[in-house]
Amino acid sequence: MDKNTFFWKMVDGRLPPPECAKTLGLKFLDIDAERGTIEVEFQAAPQFLNPVGNVQGGFLAAMLDDTMGPALVATLGDGEFAPTVNLNVQFHRPAREGQLIGKGRIVLRGREVCQLAAELLQDGKIVATATATAVIRKV
Amino acid sequence: MDKNTFFWKMVDGRLPPPECAKTLGLKFLDIDAERGTIEVEFQAAPQFLNPVGNVQGGFLAAMLDDTMGPALVATLGDGEFAPTVNLNVQFHRPAREGQLIGKGRIVLRGREVCQLAAELLQDGKIVATATATAVIRKV
Repeated sequence: MDKNTFFWKMVDGRLPPPECAKTLGLKFLDIDAERGTIEVEFQAAPQFLNPVGNVQGGFLAAMLDDTMGPALVATLGDGEFAPTVNLNVQFHRPAREGQLIGKGRIVLRGREVCQLAAELLQDGKIVATATATAVIRKV
Repeated sequence: MDKNTFFWKMVDGRLPPPECAKTLGLKFLDIDAERGTIEVEFQAAPQFLNPVGNVQGGFLAAMLDDTMGPALVATLGDGEFAPTVNLNVQFHRPAREGQLIGKGRIVLRGREVCQLAAELLQDGKIVATATATAVIRKV
């Protein structure tokens, strides 16, 4: 594993996080690039709430995308990137403003095509799950 | 159609938009509740950008959710709501900061289960498409 990529420089503070991660309040709790697993924290802001006062589902989708993406990106070499081509989200419970935990994993790590999965929890309960397909490309 | 619901009050300015809509820069361009179609505008903010400087896919998912959701909500009666239970997004092209157009429609309007579809365009080109399932509930 190449610890000199943009991703790892960001994780250990050598580079600032991207804007989308700041917006979602992303913090890395645990990254195991060998096993392809990740645990991250998000903060659902008041700006994400729908008319009923719950987090709009799309922002939960953004969090799940930002859980699965880094699980894969942690395994990439310098000059590689992996755009998501498909994201499928299942919504189970409403989520409130505040802390959410994302748990992601690489289900299949192909040379190009990768299959990913993740859960999003609040207060220990699953609020949404997702699968995604990403394709590894070279810059 | 009941034009005295929260949704229509919001559309004609009698009530403020929800926070998630403000965050995504949502404006309603056209709503045809009889045909079940909608056209909306979004503004991708710098806060949505990924490390490569494109809009993070999850925020495109949030926009598609906020295209399809209103297409259905426009047809609901007072006291009815319709949480999304599944959202499937296909990403076709990178999207930049700035204006995006969402075009959504109700594919199937069941008494409870509804199937929705939408496209998201930038500069006339499709950047992402989605389907969703929503279920009508009464408060």
